[in-house]
Amino acid sequence: MLTYSFESIGSCSLYEHLYRCIQADIRAGRLAPDEKLPSKRSFARHLGVSVITVENAYAQLMAEGYIYSLPKRGFFVEPLPPALPVQMPAPTPPPAAPVSPWAADFVTNQIPPENFPFSTWTRLLRTVLRQEDKHRMQTPSSQGCRELQTAIAQHLYAFRGMQVRPEQIVVGAGTEYLCGLLVQLLGRDAVYGVEDPCYQKPAKIYEACGAACVSIPMDRDGVRVDAVQTSRANILHLSPSHHFPTGIVMPVSRRLQLLHWCAQQPGRYILEDDYDCEFRTNGKPIPTLQSIDPTGRVIYINTFSKTLASTMRISYMVLPLPLVERFQQTLGFYTCTVSSFEQLALAEFIQSGAFESHLNRMRTHYRTQKEAILTQLAESSIASRCRVRMENEGLHFLLEVTGPISDAALLSCAARHGVRISCLSQYYRGTPACPPTLVVNYAGLGADHTHAAIALLIDSIAEALSPEPSQTPE
Amino acid sequence: MLTYSFESIGSCSLYEHLYRCIQADIRAGRLAPDEKLPSKRSFARHLGVSVITVENAYAQLMAEGYIYSLPKRGFFVEPLPPALPVQMPAPTPPPAAPVSPWAADFVTNQIPPENFPFSTWTRLLRTVLRQEDKHRMQTPSSQGCRELQTAIAQHLYAFRGMQVRPEQIVVGAGTEYLCGLLVQLLGRDAVYGVEDPCYQKPAKIYEACGAACVSIPMDRDGVRVDAVQTSRANILHLSPSHHFPTGIVMPVSRRLQLLHWCAQQPGRYILEDDYDCEFRTNGKPIPTLQSIDPTGRVIYINTFSKTLASTMRISYMVLPLPLVERFQQTLGFYTCTVSSFEQLALAEFIQSGAFESHLNRMRTHYRTQKEAILTQLAESSIASRCRVRMENEGLHFLLEVTGPISDAALLSCAARHGVRISCLSQYYRGTPACPPTLVVNYAGLGADHTHAAIALLIDSIAEALSPEPSQTPE
Repeated sequence: MLTYSFESIGSCSLYEHLYRCIQADIRAGRLAPDEKLPSKRSFARHLGVSVITVENAYAQLMAEGYIYSLPKRGFFVEPLPPALPVQMPAPTPPPAAPVSPWAADFVTNQIPPENFPFSTWTRLLRTVLRQEDKHRMQTPSSQGCRELQTAIAQHLYAFRGMQVRPEQIVVGAGTEYLCGLLVQLLGRDAVYGVEDPCYQKPAKIYEACGAACVSIPMDRDGVRVDAVQTSRANILHLSPSHHFPTGIVMPVSRRLQLLHWCAQQPGRYILEDDYDCEFRTNGKPIPTLQSIDPTGRVIYINTFSKTLASTMRISYMVLPLPLVERFQQTLGFYTCTVSSFEQLALAEFIQSGAFESHLNRMRTHYRTQKEAILTQLAESSIASRCRVRMENEGLHFLLEVTGPISDAALLSCAARHGVRISCLSQYYRGTPACPPTLVVNYAGLGADHTHAAIALLIDSIAEALSPEPSQTPE
Repeated sequence: MLTYSFESIGSCSLYEHLYRCIQADIRAGRLAPDEKLPSKRSFARHLGVSVITVENAYAQLMAEGYIYSLPKRGFFVEPLPPALPVQMPAPTPPPAAPVSPWAADFVTNQIPPENFPFSTWTRLLRTVLRQEDKHRMQTPSSQGCRELQTAIAQHLYAFRGMQVRPEQIVVGAGTEYLCGLLVQLLGRDAVYGVEDPCYQKPAKIYEACGAACVSIPMDRDGVRVDAVQTSRANILHLSPSHHFPTGIVMPVSRRLQLLHWCAQQPGRYILEDDYDCEFRTNGKPIPTLQSIDPTGRVIYINTFSKTLASTMRISYMVLPLPLVERFQQTLGFYTCTVSSFEQLALAEFIQSGAFESHLNRMRTHYRTQKEAILTQLAESSIASRCRVRMENEGLHFLLEVTGPISDAALLSCAARHGVRISCLSQYYRGTPACPPTLVVNYAGLGADHTHAAIALLIDSIAEALSPEPSQTPE
């Protein structure tokens, strides 16, 4: 009769150990297909365990399909297909840890911890979690919690002058996610036009989702209307309030021309990506394209990544009413991707006025920070060799470097100084046509760190511009 | 000269009011294209406001492109394209509020509030939010926070015997989201096979993402291997540990046959959806398909929606190593869709052992609940007319009703009693071949509510089976 030792049992229960032993023997072929197993009673006596131990082991083997039973005849080994040879590949090294090795980072979209309202947020979450009612546990509709939809609609009215109904709003786990959802809504047959130059992610997302994506060249007012018209695009992804990286604010005439283009054919839409409208440092925020569109062709998208924290994945889009209906019909089966707890906390954050106070505080903070940076640059040794541009529109500006210098030289010099920064030319999908220009995104620098970071940047530019090589031989 | 009244100014600032008035006149054509505007100084004197007010209004109009300036000549109205006619559709009624009108709901995937560990979760979130360090605000990698990846890997080892490296894990905002991501990873040219019958969402997602989806009929061991082989599918979405709705546990022989099918051609994969492996009420959890796969063809998916709350959108998948590399190359640009705060709180929840305690408590709760339900059914008037099946595998069971009764009659009788329930036949994509069978999903019933809900269900079945119509005339 089968014999197993219970010596190496470890923390297993008796039945689990027995189950493992028999399973191993079946998988290795040491117990033949259709071989009869000992009866529970005699097996238990033989092994010196209780009948229930054998019973439980047999039950688990039955449940997993390793043995079968025949009435009044007992238990038998299930014939199994042969084991497959191991084909596991050589392990790849794990991806590098995401710790920033940079002394100064002008690329990151992270918000410094001191800019996040930790205590308010904690208090709101605690309040949400304290209300242990049924409602808190109800799966929200595919478009999000009604509380958050309402709060966003009110915020858009107060802050952007937009008249939007709560049911037009779709909440999702980040703008990237919403772009993918839009491809499902508008179709993979549509052609998505992106600005050139641009923030590269939307184009990557459209392509990853299987949609064709074309680049539309820009002039100083934004995408060129003639280029839009000759392109195959029927969906345009734009940032009219503040374009990244150029900083262009699209004037109203160009906006109206693009709305006319939309109206010429059915199925044309503009995705208005309003990612940092909140941080225009001079004057009022630029009104949205959505608010001057009488035709229902603008889909407005915004995010709380810039205003709260990049690690909080909450964005939203405002659909024109006919698209709301299409969304419900074709994509209404989806569950909203943002946890209800965070949605309800955010709704309360907005409704209570804490969001507005936070925005005001942040605007002041960024304005002060920017002014200090501009002063530091103006008083530096490179002041006469650089020109600051587009500094009033949002959380980055352009630093044009004059003189016979290449982008590559600027970047490699910056890297040697521990400075992570990008050049305007890197954001072009076509051939870039711009003088050497650095994109200075200062939002990720902590207040205490800004002066040192800018000093490093200045040193690196000064070195790049210096006629004699300042590098020591390697 | 232009004249505006400042009487109806409301809460606007003076400059904002002036800006709005001029903007309205330009948009309505009351100010002609290229018309010269008054000089700042004379306009200010004329309106009785300060020069700075006019200056700010002009600056905002300039920023938005409503006016332009010519050096030493002043400000002029920008020629604008004509306004578009309003084409807004008649408003659609807002979608119905998501409040459940049912007296008993055997379909919902909501977890009753008493089953969520509110106080532990609040404490963990507070701890995470108290650590206001840089790390908390760091954007996690596309696959999620390393802390959560590590915690999940350890949990899978302890609870499922799976040997998985943290870097194989991709965290995402729900299984639905991860299915969409998999289509991007494995391609829209792949054909996705789903079980028939099945939980309908994965098929809807594959189709919404533009991939072909085919149904594979099942026998009592799961999807039929011959049907898999003759289908066009190269990706199979399966729930081998516990199939919904049939409750089938796939025996090891079928699992090995499917792994053999995978190994026959490159590009074949199995998505193992292990959505409620934690709640098998008898014996040990069924080992995963992933853990007996030596070939790296199984992608394991699981969720915390069932174990914590359906309103928390955290799921994960375990990619075989070659797919990790492909993921990083093609989709590594994505930001993880789950907020870092929730990821870190969940990591701590798992690492501290609170998750295991919670699972044990829930398992006991559901076992007690199920036993009470089975007793109530066995002692009811319909006991002899019903047969309970597949009651030990997870959080639902089948209730087969014998006698000449249709699914439609059962459902309409249930609805009249305020009972929301589904029939097995509703989950078939092809022609259903099953006797009238109700799918009794009891996880959403609160403990206090279970007895009354089952009583309603029994009444509705009794009425449906009753030979004389018990309905009062309407």
